Amino acid sequence: MTHSREHCLQLDLKDPLKDLREHFALPEGEIYLDGNSLGARPVQALARAQQVVEQEWGNRLIRSWNEAHWWDLPVTVGNKIGQLIGANPGEVVLTDSIGINLYKVLAAALTLRPERKVIVMEGSNFPTDNYIATGLVEQLGDDYEIRYAEQEQLAAAIDDDVAIVCLTQVHYRTGRALDMAAITALTHAAGAISVWDLSHSAGAVQLALNQCRVDFAVGCTYKYLNGGPGSPAFVFCADRHHGKAMQPLTGWWGHAAPFDFEQDYRPAEGVRQMLCGTQSAISMALAEVGVDIFLKTDMAAIESKSRAMTTLFIELIELRCDGLGFEIETPRDPSRRGSQVALSHAHGYAIIQALIARGVVGDFRAPTTLRFGFAPLYLSFLDVWEAVEQLLQVMTNEEWREPKYQRRQPVT
Amino acid sequence: MTHSREHCLQLDLKDPLKDLREHFALPEGEIYLDGNSLGARPVQALARAQQVVEQEWGNRLIRSWNEAHWWDLPVTVGNKIGQLIGANPGEVVLTDSIGINLYKVLAAALTLRPERKVIVMEGSNFPTDNYIATGLVEQLGDDYEIRYAEQEQLAAAIDDDVAIVCLTQVHYRTGRALDMAAITALTHAAGAISVWDLSHSAGAVQLALNQCRVDFAVGCTYKYLNGGPGSPAFVFCADRHHGKAMQPLTGWWGHAAPFDFEQDYRPAEGVRQMLCGTQSAISMALAEVGVDIFLKTDMAAIESKSRAMTTLFIELIELRCDGLGFEIETPRDPSRRGSQVALSHAHGYAIIQALIARGVVGDFRAPTTLRFGFAPLYLSFLDVWEAVEQLLQVMTNEEWREPKYQRRQPVT
Repeated sequence: MTHSREHCLQLDLKDPLKDLREHFALPEGEIYLDGNSLGARPVQALARAQQVVEQEWGNRLIRSWNEAHWWDLPVTVGNKIGQLIGANPGEVVLTDSIGINLYKVLAAALTLRPERKVIVMEGSNFPTDNYIATGLVEQLGDDYEIRYAEQEQLAAAIDDDVAIVCLTQVHYRTGRALDMAAITALTHAAGAISVWDLSHSAGAVQLALNQCRVDFAVGCTYKYLNGGPGSPAFVFCADRHHGKAMQPLTGWWGHAAPFDFEQDYRPAEGVRQMLCGTQSAISMALAEVGVDIFLKTDMAAIESKSRAMTTLFIELIELRCDGLGFEIETPRDPSRRGSQVALSHAHGYAIIQALIARGVVGDFRAPTTLRFGFAPLYLSFLDVWEAVEQLLQVMTNEEWREPKYQRRQPVT
Repeated sequence: MTHSREHCLQLDLKDPLKDLREHFALPEGEIYLDGNSLGARPVQALARAQQVVEQEWGNRLIRSWNEAHWWDLPVTVGNKIGQLIGANPGEVVLTDSIGINLYKVLAAALTLRPERKVIVMEGSNFPTDNYIATGLVEQLGDDYEIRYAEQEQLAAAIDDDVAIVCLTQVHYRTGRALDMAAITALTHAAGAISVWDLSHSAGAVQLALNQCRVDFAVGCTYKYLNGGPGSPAFVFCADRHHGKAMQPLTGWWGHAAPFDFEQDYRPAEGVRQMLCGTQSAISMALAEVGVDIFLKTDMAAIESKSRAMTTLFIELIELRCDGLGFEIETPRDPSRRGSQVALSHAHGYAIIQALIARGVVGDFRAPTTLRFGFAPLYLSFLDVWEAVEQLLQVMTNEEWREPKYQRRQPVT
């Protein structure tokens, strides 16, 4: 690869996804590399929000649960997400938060292996998953335990005592991707249930849940899927577990006949059993707007551009920022990472502040990690070039030394 | 009371809440008596939705979690709701769905009474509460059980085996209100924990949770509080239980220091422990718009108008629809009902369809119940008059006999 601005422009001209950028409203003069935290806004989201609020809610009121298909959104949007992650229709619903969905699937999965008491997880995972598993284990008592194991320890940790192996496929901090096929096979070979958190994978990485025989998964729509701040999460339950693995948050949306108002709970037969209570219509509708853009292309094309962009970024950092104190935390092998590159620098906090002041938005994770997300649908190769150029300016001018960019106190 | 159209007009002129109607966007030519199911849209909700989507999300992106105070909305809006239900600041958060919040408080409350195994509930309750309790009881095993008791059986049912008395204050079907003070006192006398579902109370009835020494409560913002379709629910945890009653859905939003990304869960000290995962910013923002209108008046004034409207409706039905086959299911004593009147009629389904066709929107619950909700902030006494007038027309002209209004198949 020729590492020049001109070459990046040429890559953009050849980019098969370049026309999809027009579906996003990005702030002028800014390069937004934080789509791994909160994805950019689809242009259409504004009109859709107005439609839901003014027309569907305001004018049609209660009728819109049927007329505007609000009631079906968990399933219809879930099925669309299913297409992006290698699931069948009827295996995914959009609902609740990632944490709550993880609680549901962990609790359901444990009932499938009643004689086993161990949940294997990475201790370095985004901690909410560990917190959720902790809450469940403490609630159940009865010798349940979490066995923490990092990637290289997984093979040794997954033994015949293990009920569930619960892993986040792309690491929130480093961007490292786990091999879903291999680890799921390892999990099944030990007789355990496979649960994947796809929060940093969905919309960024090509996934094949059914091909990998994954049992359960949860994921996020507000990062790469551009569903809006705090948009609902999704939950995948493989067909073969329907009617068998029951989640305990048994609300009326998961009932076989919710409008019969029966006194006793009868679980819905399919993935609807993963639903609990009433969902926000506007949140679901906005999540659909984001997902619909992904259906204009395919995840192979998206992953391909993601790998090209992250490779370009890593190479430009190595080439242009050599000797400036950065270390690359993300695997160099593109098949082993998501759509994010993490750099480590002793002055990481101040550097990211100075970079944001220059209009390049990344984020920081203590103690030293700078995170940069590369959303293939709305970023160009020129954006990658410009981001590194601005970072170089921050370093060359020592802008990060300015007092205003220094950390005054720990983030709490 | 003089039961004439003219008298209703005079009541409207004297109505201290009449100016608040302008804060709601109601469909022209319609009398909306289904605010007990989905509240009407505040005018301001449209501008707020546009602001959140276009400005906060679109332009400021990830920064809005701090800048636009998204992160604090569960607490700030929770505190506003607290003012409407007799709670202190720091006792209420806006989050998740009613069902999930009920699961949290039931699970937390059980840990306060480890030696007791019984949850008392009304079998005729809106069934999702029963389903949630069932899910928890089955998950915990260990001899936990639900003891169903209707209102008149409660005193006998609440004995020393009871851990929790979990009741919906205003009944979803009949509109009957339970005496929160008396039943909570009865609950505490038996050494049990008091949990109230306020879904049909908040924004309709004057509540005094702390004065009644209620332990926990959950409630809804999409009905009388006009938060929008499926807007987040709220959860109340009395100060005295903070740091003691822990809910098991231990996500990062309930952590003492969520941005420290610690491996182990440390519960937030206050009501924030009731939070779990990331919440929808737009849903929370729209819920706040609804609640803000209530803060322009007080619940005493709202309850007073509610009672006057439901009394007027009942009297007009008795006077003008006498002999037409209606029975009134709602208590005649206004202190024993919420802001809803339920009528029973053998042809209830067809009648409600014919009435909706005339622009009066109520709803139907099988087998024979017609429900009419009277939201004091946006309905007038003239609306009540017109609703009964239209119902009378439906009955006099036998419009409900038209085939198009007949029920073809059970709602599933």
